[in-house]
Amino acid sequence: MLTLYFAPGTCALASLIALEDSGLAFKAQKLNLAESEQQKPAYLAINPKGRVPALVTDRGVLTETPAILAYIAQTAPATKLAPIDDPFAFARVQAFNNYLCSTVHVNHAHGRRASRWADDPAAQAAMKAKVATTMAESFALIEATMLAGPWVEGEAYTVADPYLFIMEDWLDGDGVDIARFPKSAAHYAAMQDRPAVQRALARARA
Amino acid sequence: MLTLYFAPGTCALASLIALEDSGLAFKAQKLNLAESEQQKPAYLAINPKGRVPALVTDRGVLTETPAILAYIAQTAPATKLAPIDDPFAFARVQAFNNYLCSTVHVNHAHGRRASRWADDPAAQAAMKAKVATTMAESFALIEATMLAGPWVEGEAYTVADPYLFIMEDWLDGDGVDIARFPKSAAHYAAMQDRPAVQRALARARA
Repeated sequence: MLTLYFAPGTCALASLIALEDSGLAFKAQKLNLAESEQQKPAYLAINPKGRVPALVTDRGVLTETPAILAYIAQTAPATKLAPIDDPFAFARVQAFNNYLCSTVHVNHAHGRRASRWADDPAAQAAMKAKVATTMAESFALIEATMLAGPWVEGEAYTVADPYLFIMEDWLDGDGVDIARFPKSAAHYAAMQDRPAVQRALARARA
Repeated sequence: MLTLYFAPGTCALASLIALEDSGLAFKAQKLNLAESEQQKPAYLAINPKGRVPALVTDRGVLTETPAILAYIAQTAPATKLAPIDDPFAFARVQAFNNYLCSTVHVNHAHGRRASRWADDPAAQAAMKAKVATTMAESFALIEATMLAGPWVEGEAYTVADPYLFIMEDWLDGDGVDIARFPKSAAHYAAMQDRPAVQRALARARA
């Protein structure tokens, strides 16, 4: 059995959606970030990073969204959530997910988590002030060079799609109108129509 | 034929070392970042992100270090640079590499690339001032929970090792004495003894 530790509003929802897509049996365990549950000893024993997501498997714990997404795709090969038999095509999916984790998520985090990178409140405010710019720059690049449409890799839905959906979901709060990016806006709408996404969002609200 | 675009001092050296490890035929093309060669049209046509690394293959271009490292491991399976036949073990390697790209590299980048995230020079200085702290925190976590020793995954050398080596190589410039982290210091020394690392560093100096 797999157990995913997640929290509403976080990138961990990408793994939750992928698990719903996969058909794998799993439990979802919601953490209360408002009460800093991810920093308490019980959770740090599971994930010393004090972050979500964490996926507990029979062999141990996995962290980091791109790694968890690739694992889900490899563990449920029949659902074809990634082109796992084609190293080049698989690497393209992974490169997309790596861009989201190392650049887009990082841009977003400068809004609410600026204290990670500077202690001065004025510096934190300066970082927050640039989030709309950096998020829009990233989505301009995604729109122009990465999102084939309708899904990230074209006609085949992959684990890149739920991860992009989470970043799209952050845009409004980051001060960016997704309508500036028509392919992303269409992708965001198409994702919301998927039953797996609806099930995951219902778990997050529960 | 593979062609890796890289620059000295950057994370792209991890892919260069892995290519040397792999035995695959490749060319290495050095960019001059001091002249912003990565932002010029000739290179942007290869990688619109304007960053290194980029790996040009017969099927197209791959970017993002963790994706390139996994691709190299999958393309040279005989060299066993990752446990590619075991999804859980492979995900552990990928999770490590994702931590480096999304957290450790990002910490480091706040020293020299703070302008990505704030325009105010005082804010950029505040970010630079915290780099030694965040890099040391990351290496404390790596040392305590991730680096099995002698290699990242224990007795088996994987593509996680050259990537960690690059981060270790940055510590001194980031104001962190690697001697505070004995397992990392031993790993850094062991990497320097490897002929593949020496060949890669010679290419970077050439």
